Amino acid sequence: MPLVGIVVGSESDLPLLQPAQDILNQLGIAYELKTISAHRQPEKAREYALTAQQRGIEVIIAAAGLAAHLPGVLAGWTSLPVIGLPLARGELGGIDAFLSIVQMPPGIPVACVGINNAKNAALLAAEILALKYNKTQEACQKYRQEQAER
Amino acid sequence: MPLVGIVVGSESDLPLLQPAQDILNQLGIAYELKTISAHRQPEKAREYALTAQQRGIEVIIAAAGLAAHLPGVLAGWTSLPVIGLPLARGELGGIDAFLSIVQMPPGIPVACVGINNAKNAALLAAEILALKYNKTQEACQKYRQEQAER
Amino acid sequence: MPLVGIVVGSESDLPLLQPAQDILNQLGIAYELKTISAHRQPEKAREYALTAQQRGIEVIIAAAGLAAHLPGVLAGWTSLPVIGLPLARGELGGIDAFLSIVQMPPGIPVACVGINNAKNAALLAAEILALKYNKTQEACQKYRQEQAER
Amino acid sequence: MPLVGIVVGSESDLPLLQPAQDILNQLGIAYELKTISAHRQPEKAREYALTAQQRGIEVIIAAAGLAAHLPGVLAGWTSLPVIGLPLARGELGGIDAFLSIVQMPPGIPVACVGINNAKNAALLAAEILALKYNKTQEACQKYRQEQAER
Amino acid sequence: MPLVGIVVGSESDLPLLQPAQDILNQLGIAYELKTISAHRQPEKAREYALTAQQRGIEVIIAAAGLAAHLPGVLAGWTSLPVIGLPLARGELGGIDAFLSIVQMPPGIPVACVGINNAKNAALLAAEILALKYNKTQEACQKYRQEQAER
Amino acid sequence: MPLVGIVVGSESDLPLLQPAQDILNQLGIAYELKTISAHRQPEKAREYALTAQQRGIEVIIAAAGLAAHLPGVLAGWTSLPVIGLPLARGELGGIDAFLSIVQMPPGIPVACVGINNAKNAALLAAEILALKYNKTQEACQKYRQEQAER
Amino acid sequence: MPLVGIVVGSESDLPLLQPAQDILNQLGIAYELKTISAHRQPEKAREYALTAQQRGIEVIIAAAGLAAHLPGVLAGWTSLPVIGLPLARGELGGIDAFLSIVQMPPGIPVACVGINNAKNAALLAAEILALKYNKTQEACQKYRQEQAER
Amino acid sequence: MPLVGIVVGSESDLPLLQPAQDILNQLGIAYELKTISAHRQPEKAREYALTAQQRGIEVIIAAAGLAAHLPGVLAGWTSLPVIGLPLARGELGGIDAFLSIVQMPPGIPVACVGINNAKNAALLAAEILALKYNKTQEACQKYRQEQAER
Repeated sequence: MPLVGIVVGSESDLPLLQPAQDILNQLGIAYELKTISAHRQPEKAREYALTAQQRGIEVIIAAAGLAAHLPGVLAGWTSLPVIGLPLARGELGGIDAFLSIVQMPPGIPVACVGINNAKNAALLAAEILALKYNKTQEACQKYRQEQAER
Repeated sequence: MPLVGIVVGSESDLPLLQPAQDILNQLGIAYELKTISAHRQPEKAREYALTAQQRGIEVIIAAAGLAAHLPGVLAGWTSLPVIGLPLARGELGGIDAFLSIVQMPPGIPVACVGINNAKNAALLAAEILALKYNKTQEACQKYRQEQAER
Repeated sequence: MPLVGIVVGSESDLPLLQPAQDILNQLGIAYELKTISAHRQPEKAREYALTAQQRGIEVIIAAAGLAAHLPGVLAGWTSLPVIGLPLARGELGGIDAFLSIVQMPPGIPVACVGINNAKNAALLAAEILALKYNKTQEACQKYRQEQAER
Repeated sequence: MPLVGIVVGSESDLPLLQPAQDILNQLGIAYELKTISAHRQPEKAREYALTAQQRGIEVIIAAAGLAAHLPGVLAGWTSLPVIGLPLARGELGGIDAFLSIVQMPPGIPVACVGINNAKNAALLAAEILALKYNKTQEACQKYRQEQAER
Repeated sequence: MPLVGIVVGSESDLPLLQPAQDILNQLGIAYELKTISAHRQPEKAREYALTAQQRGIEVIIAAAGLAAHLPGVLAGWTSLPVIGLPLARGELGGIDAFLSIVQMPPGIPVACVGINNAKNAALLAAEILALKYNKTQEACQKYRQEQAER
Repeated sequence: MPLVGIVVGSESDLPLLQPAQDILNQLGIAYELKTISAHRQPEKAREYALTAQQRGIEVIIAAAGLAAHLPGVLAGWTSLPVIGLPLARGELGGIDAFLSIVQMPPGIPVACVGINNAKNAALLAAEILALKYNKTQEACQKYRQEQAER
Repeated sequence: MPLVGIVVGSESDLPLLQPAQDILNQLGIAYELKTISAHRQPEKAREYALTAQQRGIEVIIAAAGLAAHLPGVLAGWTSLPVIGLPLARGELGGIDAFLSIVQMPPGIPVACVGINNAKNAALLAAEILALKYNKTQEACQKYRQEQAER
Repeated sequence: MPLVGIVVGSESDLPLLQPAQDILNQLGIAYELKTISAHRQPEKAREYALTAQQRGIEVIIAAAGLAAHLPGVLAGWTSLPVIGLPLARGELGGIDAFLSIVQMPPGIPVACVGINNAKNAALLAAEILALKYNKTQEACQKYRQEQAER
């Protein structure tokens, strides 16, 4: 049963999510990967967020470019932690996605990571899960150590 | 019965909407004014957008600051024209609201006007309604003429 | 007789307008396409805007890059709704066109869509016309539904 | 007979033009000062530009904030040198006016000076006139010298 | 024993943290509050991060302005989740702090929230702890509900 | 004898100046072209500016990228009109050159044109010279007309 | 005999330099303070830079706002280390001064510190002199220690 | 024994440092080159900075992209002059690295040079060392002269 739900706004963004999947695989964290547009499929986005917790999801990673409402929209429908991953699409290098994700109004937080930094989105999810799951904590610490030694 | 639905993300932004109300009053266009947070009250936002058309609303003006998802969220739930009005809140002078409103993904448009420019949001709504209502068209043309002469 | 007038500032920008034409074709909305420079051909731009309404045009889509005055200039000469489409030309990724289009002075609105987002310019035009033409409304709703199901 | 035509987009911007008037007075250059909105009064703007040269105007200083189309619009109607003065209005500190003025398309130049820098707009006009009028040249050189000694 | 460690880079920033403390108090989450400069007191910052986990801290909120290295520096020394709160100090409205916090290199994540948005930093910490502590989960859900009804 | 002095900060920028040369050739305006670095060859830059007027130069076009001090430095040494042409070099698309050129302190003006817009730099020079030389005025007006008809 | 030369572009900026003077006084480093405009007084700026070394100056701190050419201009005339201090003047919060100072062309370096951060300009000067003067090195280390303990 | 310590945040950035090495070689200044990540290897970064002075290093050049904490982190552990070299990595052209490096808090200075401008980082180091070492001063002056003559 997946603990992390990765949601991406558009099929064409899927390759940018590969580093997140690699990290979760490496750390032994089960995840699911869905393509849902917050604007073209608002009902599907709502459904996903409203049922995530009961399906066992504990952390959501939501990736989007341009106006990038997806993370905020999901965060409005669920109180699970939502990690927002801004993607660089179009002409502005991701600054648009960036501001749309991080400048959430007081009351509904989103945890923003760097532009196109899918790896850090996954590592942040892992660090959050590590508070609860010893196996993940050990995997995280091992990862850190190996990273420092590389 | 109101033709224009003005929706604002936060009570504290209401004063910024006054110029829009003044224009609509001056041009004789009926409107309603609601405070709905796209993130704190996603169900209410959805309800508003899904029922707007059957309640006779023809144009929506949605005003928000910061991540400013409100116009885009409403546009996702309805195919009525949505005018997005970015408000300058916080530290970035409205650039965040601006990009969040205008950089909508292909498929779901929002009509963005200038930062804090509630007057133009209302005039744009009037110009749209003027295509259909002769009375509004006359009011618009009279407004333009008087404006040019001032 | 065309309902939508697409005007573009420079021949070289024509390919960027193709997605708008595709949408209008798909939704069965008649349009015309003109190349007019607001600065190099100010008389032609004036003529176009002053005669648009009597020629049956109901919505203007004006696309331009750099200082991108075209939408605002047309909006000054007509009270038809003008949709401004900022194009990314030169070195600034369209931010220049963006600000030049959206920051219109109070009194003369332009409806700005995203950078290079010709598709949304056309969809916004369609949503506006859908208020008046049932056929367009049906086409818009069908488009939305199919888009959600894709 | 004025040699310099100062045009400003809005009554409320008049105080920002005072330093330009002071410089022109100090250097003994005759000027006129008009308030014309490029968008709300396009016919008046066109008229002004088309008749400027025959009325003896040799340099135009056009000041505007926000989308700031005024300098570019005038430059489209006349081949007199147009100096564009971006004014800081609204929330973006004049960056919007700045880009709208300076990023003119190839073919129609505008000479942009710094944000709110009315003094430099006037000095630039003076330097241009100094090429032709010895009296102005002497006044400019005297001004420079005194400035260096201050 | 505190579960959340709030660290702020400078005494003068303490008032900006009050909304975070209010939320944590309201949700019944124990926290500690320290002032540590990542640059002026690097040894103290290192010490804090290296001992946080064994002292029972589960989430760190690190607030800083300007170059705002504090969140990233702490994240380098610990694998606890670090929430970065950019503060608007100096002349750039917090954009400097923003980029310094969110653009962390792949391998060491920081969870960035909006500029000066201490409330969301605390709510994000609460959502993370809610995965593990039922009492916090209930408090979070109650908070959300009341917020929607306000 | 050249009337226009084109100065460029670096050999590698020479190709970007070709459109300026083409315009001046087309309009029959004599010019000279020099490569002078304001920083690496400050004495040469000073010499150039101090002697320009007596050598018959009436307008200077100074092109530079990055910190782009060249136009301002020349303007400090001469009271001839200096047109600053910002070039897009390095990673910031010319915004650095742009601000360095246009934000001159009160007292020493530079006439800034658009990024990489060498054509407009030359046209502006021509418009300035047209005030004095009938032949240039006729050439400018012919150019405008042909441009409008293209 | 002063080791540090502080130069500021405009009288009105003098108060912003006080923190630099305080630090130099505290660390026992002799300095001089001059007001020289790079553009209005280019000869004076040249003179200052060309004679600085023989007068015993070892480090120059040059502060300026807007186009902020002063540090770069001085650096072009001398090979002493020049520290550039961008000041926030006008409407852009110092970003203009910032880019004008730091984006120097390859070959002539300027050491840029933060906007309005006169304190760091002085500390950097002290760290440079500390390489050569034991007394300064001791003063710097004492300052650091006290700062960490505060 | 090296006088200059070049530290770079990531192996992949090494080629960008070549121009710095070329300059130091050309000027006859001994240097060392290390790859240390401020975040992935904080202990190694601390060690490097704490021992630099006793190993004879007099100036540190620290190069990093993205959040670019490396120069500031090293500057926190040592009072040697640290030159920060922002690298353009990711989508923002180095503006993120730029602000993270230059906007250091009062008390711990970093000397920032231009984006990717490794050459100027090395020349600045040389100018600093030239205050103390006659051989370096002569090499610097010769370099300047040859550069002016090129």
